[in-house]
Parts: sequence; C-alpha cells; structure tokens
Amino acid sequence: MAMKGNALMAQSGGPTAVINNTICGVAHECAMHPEIEGVYGAINGILGVLKENLIDLKREDPYIIQGLRSTPSAALGSCRYKLKETDYARIMDVFKAHNIRYFFYTGGNDSMDTANKIDKMAKERGYELKVIGAPKTIDNDLEMTDHCPGYGSVSRFNAIATRDAGRDTDAIYTSDTIKIIETMGRDTGWITAATALAKEGENDAPHLIYLPEKPFIVENFLNDVDQVYKKLGRAVITVCEGLKNENGEYLTASKSAIDMDKFGHAQLGGVADYLCKLIPANLKIKARFDKPGTIQRMSMACASKTDIEEAYRVGRVAVKSAVEGKSGYMVALARQNGPEYWCKTELVKLDEVANKVRKMPDSFINKEGNFVSQEFIDYVKPLIGEPLPEYVRLNGQKVQRVLAPY
Amino acid sequence: MAMKGNALMAQSGGPTAVINNTICGVAHECAMHPEIEGVYGAINGILGVLKENLIDLKREDPYIIQGLRSTPSAALGSCRYKLKETDYARIMDVFKAHNIRYFFYTGGNDSMDTANKIDKMAKERGYELKVIGAPKTIDNDLEMTDHCPGYGSVSRFNAIATRDAGRDTDAIYTSDTIKIIETMGRDTGWITAATALAKEGENDAPHLIYLPEKPFIVENFLNDVDQVYKKLGRAVITVCEGLKNENGEYLTASKSAIDMDKFGHAQLGGVADYLCKLIPANLKIKARFDKPGTIQRMSMACASKTDIEEAYRVGRVAVKSAVEGKSGYMVALARQNGPEYWCKTELVKLDEVANKVRKMPDSFINKEGNFVSQEFIDYVKPLIGEPLPEYVRLNGQKVQRVLAPY
Repeated sequence: MAMKGNALMAQSGGPTAVINNTICGVAHECAMHPEIEGVYGAINGILGVLKENLIDLKREDPYIIQGLRSTPSAALGSCRYKLKETDYARIMDVFKAHNIRYFFYTGGNDSMDTANKIDKMAKERGYELKVIGAPKTIDNDLEMTDHCPGYGSVSRFNAIATRDAGRDTDAIYTSDTIKIIETMGRDTGWITAATALAKEGENDAPHLIYLPEKPFIVENFLNDVDQVYKKLGRAVITVCEGLKNENGEYLTASKSAIDMDKFGHAQLGGVADYLCKLIPANLKIKARFDKPGTIQRMSMACASKTDIEEAYRVGRVAVKSAVEGKSGYMVALARQNGPEYWCKTELVKLDEVANKVRKMPDSFINKEGNFVSQEFIDYVKPLIGEPLPEYVRLNGQKVQRVLAPY
Repeated sequence: MAMKGNALMAQSGGPTAVINNTICGVAHECAMHPEIEGVYGAINGILGVLKENLIDLKREDPYIIQGLRSTPSAALGSCRYKLKETDYARIMDVFKAHNIRYFFYTGGNDSMDTANKIDKMAKERGYELKVIGAPKTIDNDLEMTDHCPGYGSVSRFNAIATRDAGRDTDAIYTSDTIKIIETMGRDTGWITAATALAKEGENDAPHLIYLPEKPFIVENFLNDVDQVYKKLGRAVITVCEGLKNENGEYLTASKSAIDMDKFGHAQLGGVADYLCKLIPANLKIKARFDKPGTIQRMSMACASKTDIEEAYRVGRVAVKSAVEGKSGYMVALARQNGPEYWCKTELVKLDEVANKVRKMPDSFINKEGNFVSQEFIDYVKPLIGEPLPEYVRLNGQKVQRVLAPY
C-alpha cells in the first residue's frame, strides 16, 4: 500500500487551451485512491509552493472541476520562475509542513527540470515523496514523448487561421497580396509547421513556411516570395517568431533586460513585422501580417478533441503512477502502430527530459527549407483531432464573353 | 410583372466570415422568381464586371451554394477598386450585352457609392435596371442601418479572444503582465468596443479600451495603464488600429504610397506595437501584443449565428425588393423594440449611405474615453449570437499557512 499523505499539483509556464484538463485528470484520479488524503493546488506554480499559497481542491464543486475541461488557461495560475538553490530547502519545508507525499507538476522542459531537482532532493533527504511530471507545452519541444498536450490545439487553431487567411487572400489578392502569419515557437518550428494542414490543393495557403531549424536567409526568402507571387499573384506565408539567421541569432530578439523572462529567454516577436517591411522595399508588393499571439494558445473554440483527451489522460496516469510508487518520471505519449491513431502512455525519466529541446528532424522539412514534408503532415494530422471544417468553392462556369476586352 | 432578364451579383471590399451567406441568400431568392432568368456572379467585384469576367451561378451544385453558408471569405472574389468616370459606360455595355436587369452589390460605404452611381447612370440612359445594395462590413460604419452583417461575427471572435487573453494574463501575470490586443477598424471603434463583452466581473479583461472616436493622448493612456497595474498587477487593453492623436492624425499610418489602397486609404497597423514600446519605456513593465489581423474577420469557428442569419436574409430581401421594382436602395436592418432581439429589414436610399461613415455616438463611450458604456453593451450583446462559452473559476479555499513567510 502506498504511503498515506496529501497530493499537491501545480501548473507552470505559458498557459494552453487544454492544460486545465490535466488538473481535472489529476483531481479525478486522486479521488480514486484512499491513500491520497488532501488534494491541494499551488497558486502560480512553484511560486505558490514557496509562498505556501495553497488551495484545497477537495472543497471545490465537482461541477467546477469538470468545467476545467472546457476552460482554457491555467486555473491554478502559472509562473516563469527559475528556482534558486536555496529555494529547494523551502520547498521541502512546505512539503513536510503539509505532509505532501505526491507532487504533480505540469509544464515544459524548465518545469521538468524543477520537478527533477525536487525529486532528487527528497531522495537525498530521505523524505518519502513521489514526483511525476505531466507534459504541457504548445511548443512541442519535449524529448521522449511523441508530442506534448497543448500542441494539438495550437496547431488546430493555426491551421484554421491559415486556411481562413488563405481564403481571405484568394478573395482580395488584388489589393491585399502578401500575408504573413507569425506563430509562436521559441526555438522550434513545430507550431508553424502545423499550418501546412491548411493546404488542400497545390495553390492553397500556406505557400511558404519558415522554421527556426533552418537558417533564415533574406535573399532566399525574397526569391521564394517572388516566385509564388509570379505564379499565383498572391502568397500566404507562415513564419516562426523564433527565426534565426545564419549566425544562429534571432532575427528580432529584444535586447532589453525587461523583456527577458526569469530563465533569461529573450522575448521574441516582430519577425512578421520585419519581413512585411522587407517585401515592399525589395519586391514592390504590399504585405500585411497577422500575429495571433497568445490567442493561438488559448483558443478553446478551436481546441483539438484528441488533445483535450490526452491532456486529461496524462493527469490521471500521473496520479496512478505515483500511487504505484513511481517517482522522478514524466508521463509521455507513445504513438502505436496501426491503422487508427492511438498513443499509449509510458513513463520516461525526468533526467532525460529536463532542459532539453527537441527540434524538428530534417525529415520533417523540405529540401529547400521553405515547407514541411509529407512525413511531417502524417505525424501532425491526427493531433488536431477532427478534420478541419469543410469550406466550399464555386465551380465557376464562365459566362461566354461577347465584348472586346476592356 | 417585373422585367425579364438576368441577375448579377458581386462582392466588394474586405471579406468577412458571413458575406457568402448574402450570396447564398441572393441565389436562393433568385431561384424563386421566374422573371430572373440567368443568375451570374462577377469575379472580383466590379473588376469582374469591367473585364466581363462572369460566372453562371445556375450551373453551380446546390450543395455548394448551400455550403457558402459555412464558408468564410468572398467566394466570388472581391476587390478594392475606385471606379473612374469612364468605367461606368463600360459597365452599362456589359449589362446590356448580358441583359443584366438586376444588380446586387454587397459591400461597405465605397461599394454603396458604386451601386448608387450605376443606378443613376442606368436611369439617365433609360436602361431598365434594378440595383439593390446589401450591407457588408466588419467595421459597422454604415449609416441608416442598426448594424452591418459581418460585425456580429468579428465582435464574437474578438470578445472570445479577449476573454481568452484575460484568462491567459490572469494565470501568467507574474511574467506576462500587460497585454494589448489590436483590432481592426479604420475610422471607428465599433469592433474594438465589442471586446467589452469579454468582461464578466470588475477585474476581468478588458481593463481599458481605446477608440478612434476619442483623441488618443499618450500621457492619459500611460496613467490609465499604471492605475490598473497598481490595482490588479496586470492589464489587458484593447486598441483600435485606427487610433488618432489630438490633431486627428493616425498614430501609425504608413506614409508609403504602396500601402495606400485604391481609394487612397492608408494601410494602418502597428498601433499595439507602438504602445508596447511606450509601456516598458515609461512604466518599466513588460508588455506584449496580439494582432489577430485578418483572422478576426474570417473566423467561421467563432461566427455569430445571428450574423449568419441576417447576412443570408439581406441577400434574399435584396432580390425580393428588386423584383418588386425597387432600385437605388440598400437593405438595412432596423432593430425592433421588445423583450427579444429582432431586426426587421427595410430599404434605405443609397444616397444616404454612400461614402458616409457612422462613428460611435458619445453615449456609447465612457466619460474618460477608456471604455464603453452600458448602453453600448446593450446594443452589441445580441449581435454576437449565443452567449460566450462559459469558463469556470476555482473557488480557491485557502489551505491554512503554518510556516513563516518566505
């Protein structure tokens, strides 16, 4: 029988449309195990642990807990806080004071590092604690898992937005000719790449996709845009906020200290704006950009049902694994072979995930570095859930001209 | 009996999520009147008329015509083209060559001017032609109608996006503190104002709203932001792309000729980016922006069912009115008194709509010029259709602290 005690959960990093499903999964599964007595949530992630700012989830209305499944963002609050060495002792004090024996942390690679260090410190100190991480990042850049909850939904939003933008440009290309959509993605192109799902036919948006896995060369970009424009009279281009030049420098990182987060990551953005100025200056064509920003990660209206289900499931499995005595692991999704898409869950060591960044493999990007491969499409398609909504196109039977051209 | 002949329809200006509903309504209603023989569509608006680039809508699959109801953008293509004086004679030639006796034009104030001129020229020349305009503009700036089809859907998208952005900021305000969302709206704040629908409680987003109807004063803005930040530790601010300073100049209009559209309107944008630089420079707080751009006007996933129904209905009424012998009118929506929202349709003279811009009345804006009034909320709420999706919030019963503060 597992140790009796209380469970604590916390959310970290950028919110997503589905991360509350993981909290709901943890809460539901905790209720199934009598050895888990109290079920607490830390307010604003690890900051809530440090400040002893905890809430009692057993006193929440079950209707509210269930409602988390259709509520975007992080209901417990989140943070970006890099722990100092001295913070770990405080965490242990808080855990002991509240008899926390189960700790569940949802987040990305920074968070998995935090969870890993807490697990190790508890072992060193002989404090019995089960620590399980649940993956959460729209960036989809965690190692050891097929994909990350949050990614399917941001991909669905951006695929729909890109298809919509394509239809917009198809209609009004005589004046709004070039459209650039800037997606999130600090160091990897997973999110941007998923916009390829918008494409139905050869001439449909997106026409070009630029990812940080390949150095961005302005001359090649302008040449690509010019070619698409000459062929179609228009272009819809998706770019990652984290594009880098040949020297590996962000195209547009802010150098201002105020724009660094607590991990020292630069705040990005402005790539599309920059490219929108390059195009008229060099090609004499008008360009506009859309930057959905945080809207993309928060859209429950465009969330993936597959993503919602998986985010919930990793929460439940995290609790089951801890009760079975596992600690120092993250719940990963492992895609199974077969005619239907299915991921089983498995446990991977936090050591193998912490602070690592999984970039898109070369086989997912085309040779020219301006689009994705079919292999990537096959990878990402099931993650967005149901097929994209079907839009029609007029067949367009021409009426015979009878006048001279005007 | 109305004159036998062919009908022609065309779409103009920026596409919307629902404008194809108007085309569907026109096509469906035309099928009901034997005096309307052929039903044609002009490709890319009035440009398609000038170029005699017409398609035969009677040869379209009824399934496709029905599918227009859930397909955003302008299926016939659109344009921004200011007619030259000499173009009108060409239009008459094309109409005569194809025996066009019914002309339906969906668009905004520029388009109603075009329709008006065509109507007058036909009358001058004694060519029997019925011209009816159907309102379409997300900007909601047409005179003589309660509102414009397209506006309800862009409002719903932005209200959802702002609520989502509010939840995002609630969760991660310790690092993402100030968020600015830039909406469309060339000269009027209707779209931006509708983001107020996101607000549930006093502390919810949006906290501040800035509209071009009031001069934007940087000092007041910074003061407003500072006050919200001091109270809540965060702020979500929505701003219109068309904000103007005390001299009536756009804050950020491009002076480049390539960025002017064919009507000489400057391409706007960059307001949020500009404000995002002001905030850290003056208040030492980090600010980010979301700019959904054309995504906001194209989102069928967030379209308003009321808007969809009305866009369809104005198309049907346009045809009915023309068959009844009316010409030189636009179909307007007239809100009826009563406990339930309902707009009846009526005809207003194109003269009274053409080239006019309806700004938000003072009574729709608060005294401070940084939010909307309850009167505006009452106006806009029914236009977005169903209530916004319900999100939950944890009750948050605190666990008793037992340690000294850290």
